[in-house]
Amino acid sequence: MHEFDIITTYFTHQSLHRADVIYGIGDDAALVTAPLHQELVITTDTLVSGVHFPLSTSPYDIGYKSLAVNLSDLAAMGATPAWITLALTIEQADKQWLEAFSRGLLTLAKRYHIQLIGGDLTHGPLSITIAAFGFAPPQQTLLRKNAKPGDLIYVTGTLGDAGLALDHLKKNIQLNNQDQPYLMMRFNQPEPRVETGELLRNIAHAAIDISDGLAADLGHILEQSKVGATVYVDQLPLSPALTRALPQEEAIKFALTKGDDYELCFTVPIDKQATLEKKLASQTCPYTCIGSITTQPGLLLYYQDGRQYHGKTAGYQHF
Amino acid sequence: MHEFDIITTYFTHQSLHRADVIYGIGDDAALVTAPLHQELVITTDTLVSGVHFPLSTSPYDIGYKSLAVNLSDLAAMGATPAWITLALTIEQADKQWLEAFSRGLLTLAKRYHIQLIGGDLTHGPLSITIAAFGFAPPQQTLLRKNAKPGDLIYVTGTLGDAGLALDHLKKNIQLNNQDQPYLMMRFNQPEPRVETGELLRNIAHAAIDISDGLAADLGHILEQSKVGATVYVDQLPLSPALTRALPQEEAIKFALTKGDDYELCFTVPIDKQATLEKKLASQTCPYTCIGSITTQPGLLLYYQDGRQYHGKTAGYQHF
Repeated sequence: MHEFDIITTYFTHQSLHRADVIYGIGDDAALVTAPLHQELVITTDTLVSGVHFPLSTSPYDIGYKSLAVNLSDLAAMGATPAWITLALTIEQADKQWLEAFSRGLLTLAKRYHIQLIGGDLTHGPLSITIAAFGFAPPQQTLLRKNAKPGDLIYVTGTLGDAGLALDHLKKNIQLNNQDQPYLMMRFNQPEPRVETGELLRNIAHAAIDISDGLAADLGHILEQSKVGATVYVDQLPLSPALTRALPQEEAIKFALTKGDDYELCFTVPIDKQATLEKKLASQTCPYTCIGSITTQPGLLLYYQDGRQYHGKTAGYQHF
Repeated sequence: MHEFDIITTYFTHQSLHRADVIYGIGDDAALVTAPLHQELVITTDTLVSGVHFPLSTSPYDIGYKSLAVNLSDLAAMGATPAWITLALTIEQADKQWLEAFSRGLLTLAKRYHIQLIGGDLTHGPLSITIAAFGFAPPQQTLLRKNAKPGDLIYVTGTLGDAGLALDHLKKNIQLNNQDQPYLMMRFNQPEPRVETGELLRNIAHAAIDISDGLAADLGHILEQSKVGATVYVDQLPLSPALTRALPQEEAIKFALTKGDDYELCFTVPIDKQATLEKKLASQTCPYTCIGSITTQPGLLLYYQDGRQYHGKTAGYQHF
């Protein structure tokens, strides 16, 4: 199957069309119009086969997850997604694979009214690089560097689920049949917290998405904001599936150190707490306050009874 | 070496800073401001080791070429480049390799006042995906679909040089010592025709960059514009190095079918010919008129004495 036929059949014809796209797939580059008086938010993430997803992952899930991790970055900035480009490197042009991959990718794209505006299809070891583009009103994006002492620290959803699923895939942990589908969905089809990110504009001081583990990713906020934090490890949100699979100490370790959950971690000044909780109540996305920002640099981990937590906190190491 | 140290040392500290970049490398995404009343032009291209460049290519050249091929796409739209993102997948974090790679990339970036605003660094088989962003005034970009019967067809530079260099690297062709450095530069450090692309706004009807071979790439203009073309094969611009290395028929075949030259092919209405040639005279970029657009679909190849050319025209096949 020829490169151009693949692109037309599986991508051009399947993508929706936005009014702000003057020219999408089909020329040397795409042409778009950025909205007036908005900042443009740009991110890119690569998923490499065997590194970011197991070789056994279904093409639908690969397509879905490749986009989800990019949308998660836009969500962590409080941006509204608009367009994506796709650089897809594949070993061979397998129709069934391409059909399922594009379906996974474009199903998620449609949910957020995103248009695929261009890309590149190359021959080589399976790898997917997406660039995602969104908008936000001026000075309302959520930067890592703006956390302030006294801010409350929140996370969305539950933590550690994707890490547990990965350990299961690596045959380190056995899961019961009841919890397996839920955990595998958490790993293969993470839900980017786009609506929550948008809602946090003008409310949160700082935000990040949790891709390498809570302690590591919160650590970026602390470092860039030149602050510290106190977090209560027995307040970390854990799913019933996680607590069924692991003893409490182990579950906490997973929640602190395992990546791939793509939940948001954000900080909010106390005087915005009521507004935040009222706004979040209108959504289905769960959220939990896990601690607060302190003046003294460093991350301190406690149980609510006052004991200090001394477990491992290092997250995913890329090299 | 840690992911973040690599990014800071070799990329963040080395890139220039533009006034329209609110926040570059270092958060979940980059924040930029698109200029008012300009269209935003977006492209992405991947280079895979062993596919788009030989394993023996120097890291400086890999960095340079990865950006050049993307800038060439912007040039073919008539856009002025502004920002890039870099998704870099490497087998290991080799300091010397990273230093030379980033130097090659950022040397070219600086030449066009481009800021590296973000990216992703991942572990896997060597592959580079760049997304490049530029601007153009409304309705002045050069689309493939706008060629009109009667337009003159031009190309910049000379054709076939990069293909000859690649054949030399594959040991199919021996080159003399005098021409080798020139031809290897043409292959490893193609010059994106950015200034020429900008100058063609309001003059050219259609444009494309030649990455897969002149016949194949001009074919895209013909197909999308629903027109045909007559091209004179003995008017194709050939470098002295190419004509020294190959007999005339073979040289023409290279010029028609070999990719990787990253010259521009564009069509211009006859009433703009004088303006075009006056504007191009102010530049150092060579250009040649090679034929004209016709109503009847299809590409007809002739010698100037009227004989038809019947050689091969198929370009690079990706799959």
